[in-house]
Amino acid sequence: MTKVSLDELNKMNKTAFVVTLGDIFEHAPWIAEAVHARRPFPTLASLYEAMTAAVQGAGSDRQVTLIKGHPDLAGKAARSESMTADSRAEQGSPGLDRLTTDEFETFHRFNDSYRSKFAIPFIVCVRRHTKDSILHQFELRLKNEAAAEHNTALIEILHIAALRLEQHVVAPDHLNVYGRLSTHVLDTHGGRPAAGVVVELFEIANSGVSTSIARTLTNADGRTEKPLIGQRPIPIGCYEIRFAIGDYFSRLRAPQADPPFLDIVPVRFSVAEPEGHYHVPLLATPWSYSSYRGS
Amino acid sequence: MTKVSLDELNKMNKTAFVVTLGDIFEHAPWIAEAVHARRPFPTLASLYEAMTAAVQGAGSDRQVTLIKGHPDLAGKAARSESMTADSRAEQGSPGLDRLTTDEFETFHRFNDSYRSKFAIPFIVCVRRHTKDSILHQFELRLKNEAAAEHNTALIEILHIAALRLEQHVVAPDHLNVYGRLSTHVLDTHGGRPAAGVVVELFEIANSGVSTSIARTLTNADGRTEKPLIGQRPIPIGCYEIRFAIGDYFSRLRAPQADPPFLDIVPVRFSVAEPEGHYHVPLLATPWSYSSYRGS
Amino acid sequence: MTKVSLDELNKMNKTAFVVTLGDIFEHAPWIAEAVHARRPFPTLASLYEAMTAAVQGAGSDRQVTLIKGHPDLAGKAARSESMTADSRAEQGSPGLDRLTTDEFETFHRFNDSYRSKFAIPFIVCVRRHTKDSILHQFELRLKNEAAAEHNTALIEILHIAALRLEQHVVAPDHLNVYGRLSTHVLDTHGGRPAAGVVVELFEIANSGVSTSIARTLTNADGRTEKPLIGQRPIPIGCYEIRFAIGDYFSRLRAPQADPPFLDIVPVRFSVAEPEGHYHVPLLATPWSYSSYRGS
Amino acid sequence: MTKVSLDELNKMNKTAFVVTLGDIFEHAPWIAEAVHARRPFPTLASLYEAMTAAVQGAGSDRQVTLIKGHPDLAGKAARSESMTADSRAEQGSPGLDRLTTDEFETFHRFNDSYRSKFAIPFIVCVRRHTKDSILHQFELRLKNEAAAEHNTALIEILHIAALRLEQHVVAPDHLNVYGRLSTHVLDTHGGRPAAGVVVELFEIANSGVSTSIARTLTNADGRTEKPLIGQRPIPIGCYEIRFAIGDYFSRLRAPQADPPFLDIVPVRFSVAEPEGHYHVPLLATPWSYSSYRGS
Repeated sequence: MTKVSLDELNKMNKTAFVVTLGDIFEHAPWIAEAVHARRPFPTLASLYEAMTAAVQGAGSDRQVTLIKGHPDLAGKAARSESMTADSRAEQGSPGLDRLTTDEFETFHRFNDSYRSKFAIPFIVCVRRHTKDSILHQFELRLKNEAAAEHNTALIEILHIAALRLEQHVVAPDHLNVYGRLSTHVLDTHGGRPAAGVVVELFEIANSGVSTSIARTLTNADGRTEKPLIGQRPIPIGCYEIRFAIGDYFSRLRAPQADPPFLDIVPVRFSVAEPEGHYHVPLLATPWSYSSYRGS
Repeated sequence: MTKVSLDELNKMNKTAFVVTLGDIFEHAPWIAEAVHARRPFPTLASLYEAMTAAVQGAGSDRQVTLIKGHPDLAGKAARSESMTADSRAEQGSPGLDRLTTDEFETFHRFNDSYRSKFAIPFIVCVRRHTKDSILHQFELRLKNEAAAEHNTALIEILHIAALRLEQHVVAPDHLNVYGRLSTHVLDTHGGRPAAGVVVELFEIANSGVSTSIARTLTNADGRTEKPLIGQRPIPIGCYEIRFAIGDYFSRLRAPQADPPFLDIVPVRFSVAEPEGHYHVPLLATPWSYSSYRGS
Repeated sequence: MTKVSLDELNKMNKTAFVVTLGDIFEHAPWIAEAVHARRPFPTLASLYEAMTAAVQGAGSDRQVTLIKGHPDLAGKAARSESMTADSRAEQGSPGLDRLTTDEFETFHRFNDSYRSKFAIPFIVCVRRHTKDSILHQFELRLKNEAAAEHNTALIEILHIAALRLEQHVVAPDHLNVYGRLSTHVLDTHGGRPAAGVVVELFEIANSGVSTSIARTLTNADGRTEKPLIGQRPIPIGCYEIRFAIGDYFSRLRAPQADPPFLDIVPVRFSVAEPEGHYHVPLLATPWSYSSYRGS
Repeated sequence: MTKVSLDELNKMNKTAFVVTLGDIFEHAPWIAEAVHARRPFPTLASLYEAMTAAVQGAGSDRQVTLIKGHPDLAGKAARSESMTADSRAEQGSPGLDRLTTDEFETFHRFNDSYRSKFAIPFIVCVRRHTKDSILHQFELRLKNEAAAEHNTALIEILHIAALRLEQHVVAPDHLNVYGRLSTHVLDTHGGRPAAGVVVELFEIANSGVSTSIARTLTNADGRTEKPLIGQRPIPIGCYEIRFAIGDYFSRLRAPQADPPFLDIVPVRFSVAEPEGHYHVPLLATPWSYSSYRGS
């Protein structure tokens, strides 16, 4: 999908409108069709609300068809090219297109259990999750009743649609679909922001494997130029920021032991709200540090 | 060597004395012989000082012979059984008896470079080091002048002797050869010591590999019953204490996110003084923590 | 009262025993008399328990007589010398013998209200309180029912008796009647205990007036040789410890602004449990500090 | 002086220009006159630089006349109305118009000593100081050589001029003459900004007297709507921010002792750079807190 402005959308005839927004919901152009008459939309939020109302107001059969239009997670569809381009891009985000054989089998087994229990595909807004949290969702949701899962599937479909809308439509407002992870390093030894500190963000899998997902330097104010994660949801999962404060204090010639007592300081935390603002600062001297969820 | 008391030593004739203390210095019973006449020793420190004076007062030739009596580190001697039992036990401490083929070759190469530059074996008090810090010592010391290395070798031999004395002789005093690594967990959410927190100590190699070396629980005062490391030098190197505070706060039913913002808190630090007292406490809430070198 | 040992007490005949312990309860030698037959007491705790049982087992009339035997707080008795020496010493502790005319009138008015509502004197173990908390007790307790106040009066009488016993009888055990307020200063700028820091403890009245009650220096371990308060209950109230860390860091020639950002660091807190252990440490650099209730 | 825009100034003829800016330097319209020809000034900074150059380039006699045109601090002039309106307003800022008789005499004595040593009035940019720091300046500067004091007087005159320019001229840029004191309260017990915390700023005199100079509430982000001090220099001196966190945690029904361990948390610090940005946050739980110079 290319970007389109809300203005342009508001001026489109039904056909153009449906062609443009038809893929916001997987294989369900009828939702775009249903809201066309409600133009003009003053905000992206009002367009999204109208679509949400269309989904929620549809009969149960239509909802089930909507749900069933979604591919299996990391399933055969992933290999057979029958997914929409959006779905394919999204499933790549937590690495579902790079599963090991063991992981592929685990997903496959979960998918099968889920389908045989609920007769619908397992739907989750994958950009809000890491691989570990998707597996955790499988475990939790397999215990649900069918009615609850029907609702959960719709909620996830609406999450997916909101993200697609935010990405494809340029509007004066924004949907609340992006999170932000930021940091700030204070040098409480010298009473100033710590500039030039190497800061690296890792995703920590349950297996213990850590994957670097961002690496940057603090600026003169002790902050990073861009948030460590921004303009996207923060996948639910465990992270570690590693702050190279040993090198920082060495450059300042602060007295340190050899090797320095503190060198790389790891701060490990988990994200529970993908749309949340997580500010995780570090206050450090060569001999002490603290960190916390800030604001 | 079995334990012997300072009292018994003070009463021994020369032969018994030399047999008993002959192995304090590798293949050098003459040092025990030299101090026998100085009996009685009121303290272990005075015995150690006398032996130190004997080493330092010996001529250069005798010192070189003393140095050359030591085995190569992780060298062929390690396999050929020509080391004293003490040497064998000591070299096991940083894992020098469990080197991979690559590591064995690295040590071998360093040993050869060292021997060909200085014509003496590389001597280091291995119980004061991790594998990484021994390799670091190799690199540093290969750059020295021969005279400096002669001195360094004697200093290391005296470190080794002090540890052997402390282990084998029961005396009213102690040599300053043991370090201590301890911790303390304060729950600053509830204003009390954090009891029942799982605390695990890891050694962190430069390669990133972490090896668990102690695992325990905090008691009612938030401390561990025994120090994490005690009654031995703390090998120079990098460590990580992992505090399971997520579980602790879950048990107390403190409000937490799901997953909790903080679960396992890793505190990573390096030890530079094997005989030092390192107190590394944690002050934690479900949303913040701090750590520092305490006392 | 002079000190007496538990051993001596255990050997005394009834007359001597009652003479010795007769003043543990104000004008109520019958309590000592009642427990004499229970000798020998293996511990001070067992003697105190026996006396507690005697008070609790006495009929209501006798209890009321016991209660009425106590002087008014800061009342006319304080001036007319009819109090026991113990009572006089105790009432001096929170400064009840140095009231301003206004305060004297406030106490007098409270006393009168209390007497006219409950027909007994207001009894409180003054050593467990500051002037402010006694006034607060007056306010709270004036709202009670008569039965509740009868009980509270007995509880306070038992607090007073426990303190008198602990002070006058030398025994192998101690009653849990003393609190402890201690501190510890860590220099997290240099990674070591902060030695030689001037530490001053103030009591802070509701009026804002602060009264110095202890002043000392930290030792090489960053602690004070003796607790700031020990061997007595910590009066319920508000305190401030002032740490002269500006001077400390000046002596170490740590880079500081002029005037230094931090000079005297006040840590203000309240004590709610007179028998508690309050450890209030300070972690400081020239630019940051933290404090907490430790252990 | 009423506000004037840089644009208007750039268009003025010499007479109007000098009338408008004549009081930027006390009784010295020649400085405005000297820079008129340099118009147009693209920025306020360039106007200030031109005036600075005029002062520095003037001969020593003219500089002395400029210096002598200034009133004594808190001197007779303060009572006799011969000061410019600006001078009068400025001297009111640190309370020089409300001195006690003792203070008035101290200032008078200092003024006399200064005048008799240097033959010029003591000049200081009073808005950058508290009463205590002015007295401290007197003491320091009385020890200087005459030449150094001549320079210091000019520097202070330029500080005064810069502040007057910034206040009276509306321009696209700002001179660096204002400081900022801000705070931020984080609730590390709940992992969120602390909203609704009463925050009061006091100036603390050497005498111990504290004067409230701002009182406000934290907003939803834990910050105050406006900085505690802004749009003016922060007078060099000692301050205390008092945070009412006991009430905050009571409202949240966090478990606390009675009285709460922490109620009003005082954070005391000194300001050395009147044009600096001082950010002094508080991280607090009911049992712990920390503060630091942030950014």
